[in-house]
Amino acid sequence: MTSSRPAVVLLSGGLDSATVLAIAKREGFSPFALSFRYGQRHAIELAAAERIARQQGVERHVTLDIDLRQFGGSALTAEIAVPKGESVEQIGEGIPVTYVPARNTVFLSFALAYAETLGTGHIFIGVNALDYSGYPDCRPEFIEAYERMANLATKAAVEGTQPVKIHAPLLHLTKAQIIRRGLDLGVDYSLTSSCYDPGNDGAACGHCDSCLLRQKGFAENGMKDPIRYRA
Amino acid sequence: MTSSRPAVVLLSGGLDSATVLAIAKREGFSPFALSFRYGQRHAIELAAAERIARQQGVERHVTLDIDLRQFGGSALTAEIAVPKGESVEQIGEGIPVTYVPARNTVFLSFALAYAETLGTGHIFIGVNALDYSGYPDCRPEFIEAYERMANLATKAAVEGTQPVKIHAPLLHLTKAQIIRRGLDLGVDYSLTSSCYDPGNDGAACGHCDSCLLRQKGFAENGMKDPIRYRA
Repeated sequence: MTSSRPAVVLLSGGLDSATVLAIAKREGFSPFALSFRYGQRHAIELAAAERIARQQGVERHVTLDIDLRQFGGSALTAEIAVPKGESVEQIGEGIPVTYVPARNTVFLSFALAYAETLGTGHIFIGVNALDYSGYPDCRPEFIEAYERMANLATKAAVEGTQPVKIHAPLLHLTKAQIIRRGLDLGVDYSLTSSCYDPGNDGAACGHCDSCLLRQKGFAENGMKDPIRYRA
Repeated sequence: MTSSRPAVVLLSGGLDSATVLAIAKREGFSPFALSFRYGQRHAIELAAAERIARQQGVERHVTLDIDLRQFGGSALTAEIAVPKGESVEQIGEGIPVTYVPARNTVFLSFALAYAETLGTGHIFIGVNALDYSGYPDCRPEFIEAYERMANLATKAAVEGTQPVKIHAPLLHLTKAQIIRRGLDLGVDYSLTSSCYDPGNDGAACGHCDSCLLRQKGFAENGMKDPIRYRA
């Protein structure tokens, strides 16, 4: 274990990426956290990302401004109602309206650029193919294809000095397993924000797909989610 | 040939992308041009992109702000001297310092997001693997891997409604052939800007890789490059 291997860690401020940051550190990487202000309605998650980066400790935390709103097309950036329910069984089939076009592709591409300038090929992302909302860019085959493409894209990879490795350590974990792993690593989940439709005070709605999944994950660990929910 | 098929066309303002835009139109696509203000020193190319879009006619022209300067690492965005020479024989081996980390990956990813919101999978890019500067993300194997990844990344591609097709019609053409094709399609190359180090008045330096390649291309067509060069 060395402390001098840099890695770019995509940090949304949610439960998953907070766990991934802790895993990257445990694996001996020096994390450079990368967040995006992309016109999301839930900008509260960026404040959460800053809290998490500060609390866990990172080499640097960069928040990039990119305006996906110019393209429209998703509940998270446009004025479409976020679907709500009472339990995970009510999460719809197929790809939900909260899908942001090509979001993980865009985020990974910036991570790739950042990694190359840092002289590393290591990128961490908190995608998860089990307890998730059905986004295509969270599946293992997407991550594999991205890594393959990335190894043809950069000077460092092509010259063989920095092969690109997309680390997706949560890919095959349930939400309950992710939380268990994070608790073992000392992640403070009270700092995280996952809600697609939080109040102005940051309190989570408790009924969007994301809230339902994390509540179930904590319940399966015999715990109560430590974040605040709207009354 | 139908005029209602939208396509995203990456438009840098250079000779290659101006030609690609004309090709997309000739193939019956309704072009949505996409440019980037990414901290490049040669912002003059954005003015060229606007001129080209206006002259050729597009459905819409979007210029996105993305700040790759936060990552550093290239002559085009940082304060590193652009290499100069007297002929294309002096263009160095390997990948030059003008390389921008993961640039085409980032640009294609935004094009992918834009295409999906437009309800199309068609993306045009002016990469060229012959008379180019040795960038890894201009090679056919990169474009193929990107297309494969993209077809796993978006809702529209995964649901089968909009498979992604990366059109790279210049990939196997020499610069002279590109110019010949563009002239046949009526491209006004006096509007384009390719120089890595233009003067404040927009005049090209005449000695960077990009200037040398285009001058040779026009010469091989028995013509003089119509843009202005510094005395």
